[in-house]
Amino acid sequence: MLNYSEIDNILRALVEPTRRAILERLSRGPATVSQLAEPFGMTFAAVLQHLQTLEACELIRSEKIGRVRTCRIEPGGLAPLADWIAERRIPAERQLDRLGQILAETDQSPKKNQDQKQ
Amino acid sequence: MLNYSEIDNILRALVEPTRRAILERLSRGPATVSQLAEPFGMTFAAVLQHLQTLEACELIRSEKIGRVRTCRIEPGGLAPLADWIAERRIPAERQLDRLGQILAETDQSPKKNQDQKQ
Repeated sequence: MLNYSEIDNILRALVEPTRRAILERLSRGPATVSQLAEPFGMTFAAVLQHLQTLEACELIRSEKIGRVRTCRIEPGGLAPLADWIAERRIPAERQLDRLGQILAETDQSPKKNQDQKQ
Repeated sequence: MLNYSEIDNILRALVEPTRRAILERLSRGPATVSQLAEPFGMTFAAVLQHLQTLEACELIRSEKIGRVRTCRIEPGGLAPLADWIAERRIPAERQLDRLGQILAETDQSPKKNQDQKQ
């Protein structure tokens, strides 16, 4: 059973390119907030806000040890969206299969007639 | 190779719940613009605008025969986003596998010491 508000939150998080870039970085391994802020030339506060959005919809998790907050990707966090896509793709692919069958049948019909003529 | 502007366009299209609902409807089979407008209580013009957005990023295609425009889902239209998700999930799952291995090794270590003591 798909949770629609969960999918909505994930899409709202992913639509912002910086948050996608953060996820791309974290999918290669954990990073501290400072490490995440550096390549984007963003302030610590701006990155923190993006991280809070990603954490709220369980795409990442973070842990603060002393003064350092380390972030890591949440395995399976993108699963609800992947499931939604899979549900949309499978019927579409079935439609394509049916179209393929119809075309194959159409393609065979004149051939049969031709065979009969010979 | 992932096309980032393509993924961006797909996410901008999907973030709007009505457009997701249209895709959900079309994944069950083709529909005319009037058929799509009806359940949402939307005007023909408003639905057309959403359909144009979906068609621009190749999530659907439409064909006008006479005065009737029929829409269908574009098979593979969601593939770029599915690929982006897969690229994010695989490394995360690898990290989880490595964590599992470390935990398994940690779990074995005291056992080995215990065995040595016996």
